[in-house]
Amino acid sequence: MKLLKEKIVQEGKVLSEQVLKVDTFLNHQIDPVLMQAIGEEFAARFKDAGITKILTIESSGIAPSMFAGLTLGVPVVFARKRKSLTLSGNLYTSKVHSFTKNETNDISVSKDFINSDDVVLIIDDFLANGQAALGLMEILEQANAQNAGVGIVIEKGFQTGGSLIREKGVRVESLANIKSLENGQVTFFEETATV
Amino acid sequence: MKLLKEKIVQEGKVLSEQVLKVDTFLNHQIDPVLMQAIGEEFAARFKDAGITKILTIESSGIAPSMFAGLTLGVPVVFARKRKSLTLSGNLYTSKVHSFTKNETNDISVSKDFINSDDVVLIIDDFLANGQAALGLMEILEQANAQNAGVGIVIEKGFQTGGSLIREKGVRVESLANIKSLENGQVTFFEETATV
Repeated sequence: MKLLKEKIVQEGKVLSEQVLKVDTFLNHQIDPVLMQAIGEEFAARFKDAGITKILTIESSGIAPSMFAGLTLGVPVVFARKRKSLTLSGNLYTSKVHSFTKNETNDISVSKDFINSDDVVLIIDDFLANGQAALGLMEILEQANAQNAGVGIVIEKGFQTGGSLIREKGVRVESLANIKSLENGQVTFFEETATV
Repeated sequence: MKLLKEKIVQEGKVLSEQVLKVDTFLNHQIDPVLMQAIGEEFAARFKDAGITKILTIESSGIAPSMFAGLTLGVPVVFARKRKSLTLSGNLYTSKVHSFTKNETNDISVSKDFINSDDVVLIIDDFLANGQAALGLMEILEQANAQNAGVGIVIEKGFQTGGSLIREKGVRVESLANIKSLENGQVTFFEETATV
């Protein structure tokens, strides 16, 4: 997605060969015009997938998901993150380890909002080691819901998350897929999907 | 706001005289169509206030803020919540106590995103004891930014937060202001502002 890649090049800060900071438009300050374009792009890519719900995770997945949900005409459910969860019978739960923060969180979704009739698009801001997306996929399995795919704003394609998920036969659509952050430069993989 | 009040009456669950659960459309599952209407309503009410930024707090403030930001043509900044914060020179910070969860969180905003040139609209999902809104107001004071007012999706008008903020001379616009949750029924204050 051209607009997004331009924004990453203009405003992204390469902090190391592993870390790209995009808090001017995605993770702390959010650009609503860009989020609308991103949401519409996800909706276009998954428009024939019969999506009934979008599942994301707090907090940075919520903004792009809102516009995808609006365009597709479906509700958005966000998984809650907790250090540790008071167990409740009415929750799907999973564990998500963050390598960046070196902490493991429980994530949870109420059973009221996803069930076996649902065809779910997972959306998240970043895909690196894939732990968040895999945790959300586990929740869909618990719900016996159909996983229609994973929409990612920025994939760090040099890390293993994308492969882990694609190897399971799950469709992954990344709007910007980063090949390398070496020498303080962002380079992207070529896009195969064109919308 | 009629659409919102209807939704609260239809889907809100009164758990006690103090607690209203609205996780079918605002706090866990989110209705994008309603969020768009809410965002546009905030934008309409504050359209002449010269807003340059919206400040909200993760996670449930983000969705309505996105649409207000889109309509007003301004970025959204969300404050991050942490149990305790690693201090950094580049952050505005404040403490927010949650009476519901009986815990105090540090909230923070990067100094990169709000400064003394900004005219800021604060948006949040709920106003009860006012702790979150007061914490966000404190951050605006640290930034020497102008506080244009507070936009609230659901005010629990029988609690003290609204008075605490209005007494400081700050404009508060609540799209639904709840008078009482007694007897399992939601009753609203009459609206004074009409948009």
